[in-house]
Amino acid sequence: MSKKSEVRGGIDLGGTKIQAIVIDAHNTVIGESRRPTPEDNGPQGVADAMAEVLNAAASAAGVETGALKGVGVGAPGAIEPAGGIVSHAKNLPDWDGSFALGPALEKAAGTKVIVANDVSVGVRAEAELGAGRERDSILGVFWGTGVGGGIVLKGELWHGRGSAGEIGHTVVRRGGARCPCGNRGCMEAYAGRAPMEAEARRRVEKGEKTHLFKLMKEHDRPRLTSGIWEHALHHGDKMAEELIDRAIKALGAGIGSAVNLIDPEVVILGGGLGVRFGKTLGPEIEAHMEKHLFDHTRPPDFTVAELGDLGGAIGASLLVK
Amino acid sequence: MSKKSEVRGGIDLGGTKIQAIVIDAHNTVIGESRRPTPEDNGPQGVADAMAEVLNAAASAAGVETGALKGVGVGAPGAIEPAGGIVSHAKNLPDWDGSFALGPALEKAAGTKVIVANDVSVGVRAEAELGAGRERDSILGVFWGTGVGGGIVLKGELWHGRGSAGEIGHTVVRRGGARCPCGNRGCMEAYAGRAPMEAEARRRVEKGEKTHLFKLMKEHDRPRLTSGIWEHALHHGDKMAEELIDRAIKALGAGIGSAVNLIDPEVVILGGGLGVRFGKTLGPEIEAHMEKHLFDHTRPPDFTVAELGDLGGAIGASLLVK
Repeated sequence: MSKKSEVRGGIDLGGTKIQAIVIDAHNTVIGESRRPTPEDNGPQGVADAMAEVLNAAASAAGVETGALKGVGVGAPGAIEPAGGIVSHAKNLPDWDGSFALGPALEKAAGTKVIVANDVSVGVRAEAELGAGRERDSILGVFWGTGVGGGIVLKGELWHGRGSAGEIGHTVVRRGGARCPCGNRGCMEAYAGRAPMEAEARRRVEKGEKTHLFKLMKEHDRPRLTSGIWEHALHHGDKMAEELIDRAIKALGAGIGSAVNLIDPEVVILGGGLGVRFGKTLGPEIEAHMEKHLFDHTRPPDFTVAELGDLGGAIGASLLVK
Repeated sequence: MSKKSEVRGGIDLGGTKIQAIVIDAHNTVIGESRRPTPEDNGPQGVADAMAEVLNAAASAAGVETGALKGVGVGAPGAIEPAGGIVSHAKNLPDWDGSFALGPALEKAAGTKVIVANDVSVGVRAEAELGAGRERDSILGVFWGTGVGGGIVLKGELWHGRGSAGEIGHTVVRRGGARCPCGNRGCMEAYAGRAPMEAEARRRVEKGEKTHLFKLMKEHDRPRLTSGIWEHALHHGDKMAEELIDRAIKALGAGIGSAVNLIDPEVVILGGGLGVRFGKTLGPEIEAHMEKHLFDHTRPPDFTVAELGDLGGAIGASLLVK
């Protein structure tokens, strides 16, 4: 049994959903809760929803949030850890500026809050507790609303000057599709859930047919979630197939390029789409990656994140020492 | 003054030329020689030429090769350091298989020979003695016959599982130009000296005009060396301008992608073309790199290799402890 004072919280703040967990000293999840990321009321609305979902996870674990040793948060965008400030989180509603998320949550939860980059905490979780255990070098690729990445070298996350791991912005087609980052031809421009949805909308406006948006309404979703894409593929939806195929090829090229550069022992595919499609489409991504390797004789291992949907929140909880 | 027993040799074996140096304990070059890489007689012919050019460098320094503490060699292709074996050196004549270069040279030179990857020794030289001094993280890009790279992280060369640094095989256009490595759309397919020459020949066969090959003959060169490209640019040769522009854009995209992934303090541009065009075209490559950065607010420093043409040979000499 865990001592109560060693119980920590972890929150994964994503463009689609907020996932909270409460976890004990043995890294066993003892309570969890999730909800969609609210689109109204901007950063403060998101912070309020995070406090609520953390409360729900704590209730499930039978603790008060104030009794937690601390709460770690994995957030998108640029993070200033000292002040718990999150800036330019383009995949979150009205979050182009800066917001002091850490202090806002501390006030609501009654315990200290540590904020870090969502993908780096996800990679750290896989490195310490998941598919990267006992691996010396890891390339983590988080395929979700955007495409993030993280590099573990000699057992430690490599941060560079603070911005390392942005594999989503590997150029796979010079002068190609416009990316949410503003540049052209990035891997994310073809493989991110958000730009895939934008491309689907453009194609519908041009008169192309798809069941994607009908399925979205039927399942009462505000956007094309990974689940909606999966339904559409099950229905043999042509447009969904084309856009997923485009994403797979872009992922293969971008991951292959990164492997040529850093030559890691293992590639770990995570993120909302990565976890959902890891078993079915992972082998196709791996095959496209291998096509682009300089040394075809010794590809790295390729595996899906083991901690699944909870990996980000578990990784966030590791921020609390 | 250096003690004679501390004098080392270094040889940079390139697709175009062989450069040898003799260097003292203070890393001062005290003798040097170079010659074009011979096209006849395969690997043994290259080894014989290397022994000759090492002899010439030693003569210039007033020493016998047998009196050298040792000789380091930077070679292209796959290296097996223990046996001094060089394999699959596609930019060298008839070197698709394996050849025990180290033992062959040891016999001719009468001292021990250590063989390593040409680009990694070039990056190491810049890291220890050149533009990378006092830098914690470096991305080296060697623009020559091919495009090689090397990564220094926390002050040490990162080798991955043995093949890290192959930035030339970053995909900049999925399904694009065929690369000497066999894949498609690699940065090297657009920027390597060899594929640029092949593209120029294809365009001439299609009836396009250029002074490139006329200049090559006038200067009695067997191929389009970096010097020939420079002459052609001076003459305002349209095809040369187009192909160099294509190379610059590919380099910008590939380097930008690598910076997004590893976020180094400095990018160092070296290699035959990199050193020759560093001052004139380096700023253009840097500008294209910056276009592709995810974080436009803090690009890495961008600089040209300081050790110039001798960097590879100096780096090779550092292999001798």
